[in-house]
Amino acid sequence: MAKLPKRIDRECLKKFLDSFDNVLTDCDGVLWAGDMIIGQAHEALNKLRALGKKVFYVTNNSTKSREEYVEKCRGLGFVAEKEDIISSSFVTAQYLSQLKFNKKVYVIGTSGITKELDEVGISYTGAEPDPLVENPVFRLKDTIQLDPDVAAVVVGFDGHFSFPKIMKAASYLENKDCLFIGTNTDERFPLGKGGLVFPGTGCLVKAVETVAERPPIIMGKPSGLMFTVISTKNNLEPSRTLMIGDRCNTDILFGKNCGLITLVVLSGVTEMEHLEAWAASEDEEQHKLLADYYLPEIGDILTLINENYN
Amino acid sequence: MAKLPKRIDRECLKKFLDSFDNVLTDCDGVLWAGDMIIGQAHEALNKLRALGKKVFYVTNNSTKSREEYVEKCRGLGFVAEKEDIISSSFVTAQYLSQLKFNKKVYVIGTSGITKELDEVGISYTGAEPDPLVENPVFRLKDTIQLDPDVAAVVVGFDGHFSFPKIMKAASYLENKDCLFIGTNTDERFPLGKGGLVFPGTGCLVKAVETVAERPPIIMGKPSGLMFTVISTKNNLEPSRTLMIGDRCNTDILFGKNCGLITLVVLSGVTEMEHLEAWAASEDEEQHKLLADYYLPEIGDILTLINENYN
Repeated sequence: MAKLPKRIDRECLKKFLDSFDNVLTDCDGVLWAGDMIIGQAHEALNKLRALGKKVFYVTNNSTKSREEYVEKCRGLGFVAEKEDIISSSFVTAQYLSQLKFNKKVYVIGTSGITKELDEVGISYTGAEPDPLVENPVFRLKDTIQLDPDVAAVVVGFDGHFSFPKIMKAASYLENKDCLFIGTNTDERFPLGKGGLVFPGTGCLVKAVETVAERPPIIMGKPSGLMFTVISTKNNLEPSRTLMIGDRCNTDILFGKNCGLITLVVLSGVTEMEHLEAWAASEDEEQHKLLADYYLPEIGDILTLINENYN
Repeated sequence: MAKLPKRIDRECLKKFLDSFDNVLTDCDGVLWAGDMIIGQAHEALNKLRALGKKVFYVTNNSTKSREEYVEKCRGLGFVAEKEDIISSSFVTAQYLSQLKFNKKVYVIGTSGITKELDEVGISYTGAEPDPLVENPVFRLKDTIQLDPDVAAVVVGFDGHFSFPKIMKAASYLENKDCLFIGTNTDERFPLGKGGLVFPGTGCLVKAVETVAERPPIIMGKPSGLMFTVISTKNNLEPSRTLMIGDRCNTDILFGKNCGLITLVVLSGVTEMEHLEAWAASEDEEQHKLLADYYLPEIGDILTLINENYN
């Protein structure tokens, strides 16, 4: 039986707050669900800032540029500057830029990705609806023209995901020198209203990976690349950095992979039963999903601080 | 070092031909590539029939009904009756029928599946283009209506695969009593003309499986379900049955799983280098991919017979 995350309470609050200088927080499922803020998340984050903590928004979501994230944050009452936003799209562009990539990218995704590529001067194709119009589908092989300048495929979230897109991505990836990047592997979004499951980028990446028959490099959590980008720019000490998230196989694993303090909130995809099952498991891989701390939702930290510091 | 498949030659020809009464043959990559017959495949199969062998066409391809397969076979010069065709769509319908399934099926796929469902009197929804029309994509959760009668999801080949389809399939599958069936797991079709890779059903099944977070029941090879359907109807002795295929992780593994004699042809997705790598591997799972016999293409058996029996 591995140790369950400790619920932050009155007794451990001061020790907890004194243990970090920096906060990395996931967004969907922690701060908001879709366009709805979760409880008092904004006031909780602003309170941590008031206590002198640096705050960064670390999201696997590839659908928005950093500017759009700042706008969303501010619209919901969060303090945010462009430099505070670390998205999988941003990290993708940084990664390619650091490789001095100077060919073209085939993008399965949205302007969230292409705007970041624009910022680092990398050209691209794709990133627009591309449904099957030829019927029968087997005619596609006679109509698709591959762009000879493409030397990387990026798969991010794309509501227009389609068979022709999978075919193009897989065809580019037949060239073993073609880079294969997935923005993230989240299986689903924490929405689930009315019994509907909202698919995440992970299932799109998996479709392309299956036909390409080789694995992508993943930019988002739990990959440590995101922390490398943040800490290089901001000189963060891992042991003095708190990672807050709702998804344990991305957020919490990311925190553990990078040596951070970890806090899971139960306002997204993870429930207490999951934590108990992982703690009871004999599989050590499942123990890695267990955060240091937990709270029902991030707003609870505000309540605790207000009750004990005012 | 495991044993490589033996090339059928003059010396072993008689022993080989005497060892089986029944022939199960894969189609794409063995008999034809798209709409092109492979070498003398039709004459080779017809010759085996002339020698008294029963011949069945066993295909993971879910895009055609059995009638359409008969038409395709005959159009290319193969002798074929409806009863000779065992497709993943047919087995899907048989499987549901044997379960006395009396609810509705959500189909990601084509008329190849729905025609077989019609034959066993099972109702369905889906199986038509369903692109994203709502923008932004997050509005989907407000517009999709689930059909409360759906109690099974079938994922087959679908050129109109789309984000809304993934979302519907995953949402139906949230009900743990909802059956989850994949027609097959082939990663790609053996076409590859002009550097283009043609995605197979496997990548569509994998996308749905990833977001549903549970595995499907697979109807096609290498699952033994297909042999159960054929042998129940035709009383076939496994040890007197030859399985011919081009894809080792489906066709050959299927043959081995069912105790059949196996012959791999190199006219589809498998090359000699693959066989050598599997034989040299220390992983016993890879040894299971090694057939008893190999030939460059199935027409070579005709040449051998003509040279030695005429």
